Amino acid sequence: MTKGVSIQVIKRLPRYYRFLTELEANGTDRISSNKLAAVMSSTASQVRQDLNCFGGFGQQGYGYSVHNLRAEIGKILGLDRIHSTILIGAGNLGKAIATHLNFEQLGFKLNAIFEKDPKLVGKMLRGITVLPDNDIERYVKDNYVETAILALPKDAVENITQRLYALGIRSYWNFSHYDIAKKYDDVVVENVHLSDSLMTLCYRINELDKSINEEE
Amino acid sequence: MTKGVSIQVIKRLPRYYRFLTELEANGTDRISSNKLAAVMSSTASQVRQDLNCFGGFGQQGYGYSVHNLRAEIGKILGLDRIHSTILIGAGNLGKAIATHLNFEQLGFKLNAIFEKDPKLVGKMLRGITVLPDNDIERYVKDNYVETAILALPKDAVENITQRLYALGIRSYWNFSHYDIAKKYDDVVVENVHLSDSLMTLCYRINELDKSINEEE
Repeated sequence: MTKGVSIQVIKRLPRYYRFLTELEANGTDRISSNKLAAVMSSTASQVRQDLNCFGGFGQQGYGYSVHNLRAEIGKILGLDRIHSTILIGAGNLGKAIATHLNFEQLGFKLNAIFEKDPKLVGKMLRGITVLPDNDIERYVKDNYVETAILALPKDAVENITQRLYALGIRSYWNFSHYDIAKKYDDVVVENVHLSDSLMTLCYRINELDKSINEEE
Repeated sequence: MTKGVSIQVIKRLPRYYRFLTELEANGTDRISSNKLAAVMSSTASQVRQDLNCFGGFGQQGYGYSVHNLRAEIGKILGLDRIHSTILIGAGNLGKAIATHLNFEQLGFKLNAIFEKDPKLVGKMLRGITVLPDNDIERYVKDNYVETAILALPKDAVENITQRLYALGIRSYWNFSHYDIAKKYDDVVVENVHLSDSLMTLCYRINELDKSINEEE
C-alpha cells in the first residue's frame, strides 16, 4: 500500500499524526483539508496530495474523520507495533531523551540503559536502573532488542555500533555525527544533528537581518 | 549572492560544513566533487549542483580547496557573526543543550540561562549561573539578546514566547511542539521535533522488516 511513497511524504506524516492527536484531544471530530492545512501551516492541496498517497481517507464535502485519519497514519507509521529499545549513554543528553519522550506512543519501549561512566551506573532513569556498558552483550543475548539509541560522542559511537551490529541490532536513533549507514548497508538510521539545525538558524537570522536592512 | 537558493540546499550546507571541518582537521587540502560526494554519501552531481548555487568554488581538474570551501560555506551560513543567545529551561534537555554544543563554532554565544524551578536556579551550567525566569525582562533590557533557545514543554512555551517577543526577540531555536511561526509572522524559528524523528525511525524499521520478509 505504501510502495513508492517518497521519504519526503513519510517525513511529513509524524507532523500530521502530532496535529491530529491534538485535534482529537481537543474533541474535534471531522476536519476539512483546508482547516487541517491551516492548523499545520501547510496548503490544502499539499494535504490532499499527501493523504492521497495512501489511498485518500477523505469524503468529498465531509472532510476527514480525525479519529480514523489519526489511526490510519499511526498504522502506516507502524506505531501500533512496539519496538524494544536500549539507550546507550546516560549523560545529560541520554537523560533528556529518557525522560522527555513518550516512547510507547511513538512505537518504542525503552527497556534498558547503558553507560560507561561508573558515576552514572546504578542511577535510576524513567524507572530503569542504568547498567554498565560492559553488560550490553549479555543483555542483548538474553533479551530481544531491535533498536539502539546512541546518545554518545562521535568517537565512542564507532566502537559501540560495531558491538551492537555484531549482536544483530539493525536500527539506530543516532545523536552523534558518526555515519552509521555509510559503514553498514543493511541498517536503518535516523540521525539527529542538533548542530546542523543551529547552523540553519544562524543562516536564517542573517537572511532576516538582510531583508530588514533592505527595507530600511 | 544567495538570493533564490532553495531552503533544501541551505539545509544541506551545515552538513557540508561539518564534513569539510573534519577533512580540514584530518589534513586534507583538496577534494574532488566525487570524493566529497563519497564522504557525504551523496552524488557528485548533487555536490556540484549545490555548490554551483553559490557561484561554484571548484577548479576543473583540481577539485575544491577544503579550507576555502569550508570558509566560504561558513560565511554563507553566517557563522562568522556571533549571535547573543539565552537558554530558557535548565532541566535535562536544557542541560544537554548547554553542555553538548559548541555554540561559538555554530554562530552563537550562550550568555544566560533561565529556569522556573527554584531547585535548578543558582546551579552552574557551562560556567553560567542559572537565573530565575522572572529575571528575563530585566536581563534582556540590560543586555543585547538576539536569539532564545526554548527547552520547555509546549504549554510553557506559549507564555514565554509572548514575553520574549514583547522584548524584541525574533529568532528561536524551539524544542517544543508549540508553533511559534504560526503565531508571529516576523520571526525565524528552527524547530527540533525529536518525536517526529522517532516516528520516522519506527516507519523505516517496519519497512525494513517487510522487505526482509519479502526476500525470505
